[in-house]
Amino acid sequence: MSGIGFFGGLFEFKGYHQPVLVSSVDGVGTKLEIANALAKHHTIGIDLVNHCVNDILTCGAEPLFFLDYIGVGKLVPEKVESIVKGLAQACREVGCALIGGETAEMPGLYAGEDYDLVGFIIGVVEKEKIIKGKTVAIGDTIIGLPSSGLHTNGYSLARKIFGDTPSALGVYYPELKRILGEALLEPHRCYYHQLKPLLPVIKGMAHITGGGLIDNVPRVLPQGVMAQIHSQAWTTPPIFRLIQQRGNVSQDEMYHVFNMGIGMVLICSPDNVNQLTQALPEVKVIGEVVEQKEEARVIIK
Amino acid sequence: MSGIGFFGGLFEFKGYHQPVLVSSVDGVGTKLEIANALAKHHTIGIDLVNHCVNDILTCGAEPLFFLDYIGVGKLVPEKVESIVKGLAQACREVGCALIGGETAEMPGLYAGEDYDLVGFIIGVVEKEKIIKGKTVAIGDTIIGLPSSGLHTNGYSLARKIFGDTPSALGVYYPELKRILGEALLEPHRCYYHQLKPLLPVIKGMAHITGGGLIDNVPRVLPQGVMAQIHSQAWTTPPIFRLIQQRGNVSQDEMYHVFNMGIGMVLICSPDNVNQLTQALPEVKVIGEVVEQKEEARVIIK
Repeated sequence: MSGIGFFGGLFEFKGYHQPVLVSSVDGVGTKLEIANALAKHHTIGIDLVNHCVNDILTCGAEPLFFLDYIGVGKLVPEKVESIVKGLAQACREVGCALIGGETAEMPGLYAGEDYDLVGFIIGVVEKEKIIKGKTVAIGDTIIGLPSSGLHTNGYSLARKIFGDTPSALGVYYPELKRILGEALLEPHRCYYHQLKPLLPVIKGMAHITGGGLIDNVPRVLPQGVMAQIHSQAWTTPPIFRLIQQRGNVSQDEMYHVFNMGIGMVLICSPDNVNQLTQALPEVKVIGEVVEQKEEARVIIK
Repeated sequence: MSGIGFFGGLFEFKGYHQPVLVSSVDGVGTKLEIANALAKHHTIGIDLVNHCVNDILTCGAEPLFFLDYIGVGKLVPEKVESIVKGLAQACREVGCALIGGETAEMPGLYAGEDYDLVGFIIGVVEKEKIIKGKTVAIGDTIIGLPSSGLHTNGYSLARKIFGDTPSALGVYYPELKRILGEALLEPHRCYYHQLKPLLPVIKGMAHITGGGLIDNVPRVLPQGVMAQIHSQAWTTPPIFRLIQQRGNVSQDEMYHVFNMGIGMVLICSPDNVNQLTQALPEVKVIGEVVEQKEEARVIIK
């Protein structure tokens, strides 16, 4: 997509009363190394878009458009095509326009076929409908949506434990029912379509990325409250149990690095729990908002 | 700026009748290698913002906000601070909000202290004031605005010719009146403030980036016309003459790779030339729009 100019970036903006733009920039981190080792680049594009869409969804925004940057040592057209195919597919699924991008070939910076991939998303939300978590209160319910895997976080630790050679990633684990590499490359799940109709009853929403539940849930907690989370409320997916066992990783570190099976957290009034759990049968009530009695903002029991 | 969340990205949008959003994504290419060799990172931030601001200025847009991505092997806080200081300074100068960013530490991808820097800009233009070049016609005048140096293009070739070791970059050249490295690091010039009041009389505008005058001017030429440019109309700055001599680079390649001293091209009706040259004393009339008689869209004589 190198050389796509600014005209691709023109976007007419209408249909909102008091539109507020929301933007986010992100990469996919060292999940790239797994993609490189397995020579599978399509899903990395999906990961990046879904990560960005979820990021801006947390304040209630719908995605408008997306731009990508690919920095690469040596331009391999089929590889870039594969990445962009993934980006385009994920954008299409949420009605987001992939309006531009830049591919920069920098052999001195990126070794061989290494690349970095960066996404930039712009969304919009009606001013009075912005979800900020300000109304979150003691007694509110915390709901978790299942992740599809590691999403785009924790890959440095996972790679440290297993390595990222094709042979290490090619090992079949019965508990995963597939090879490790495939489980690790599982695309980041997008929550946009299922959550969009439910936004009016959601008081706060946290996308569980780097830092896990412990660092992300506090983003939507007002002062004086904390989140009490019951880890028994859901089943930790096999990939996380495998990582913990093989790496001898402490429970605390696991919850700090990985999403542990919860990709998005919603906070709502107890009155709206039934509506949410009926609309989203796979979600779990995972905790509640309580008075903050210690320094921690999130306690996982 | 790692970890800046989506709330930093909220932007309220108002004051336009039919606002059209314009966006661009770009990096600064291998100018980064010069910055690394000289351990000077402040101006790279300025380069990136000014490059992006000029990109969206070509359709008449004013910058609204900017986000950055820094991918790095090893996070050196002073270095990131220096880059971000440059970004912030350049954003401030054009009234653009630096609303977010992401810093990703990926030692497996970036060697040592190497980094890549990516910028995303969003601007806005009133729909009826979008400059597209559609009214450009035979007989129109082509005006060039001086660049401050290479801006952010041609560094791979320049580095191939001179090398990018501190010793090569430290050589003093009398014709540059400074060391090579300083001349090469000269920040990308921003044309926003001087061109903003003149946008109503500009029919087409081309930011001269990778591909030089030859590849960028055609972006604003309608079918059936071509640009005839007179290279004697301006003095090629010493840095380009030095590159050409030392590298024994053909004239054609020079105009294809470098801006050759023209950072932005404006196309206007002959009736408006005086207004532009009076408002911008440093510009030069460098050519005219003529009937296209051959395949080339730009002829440099």
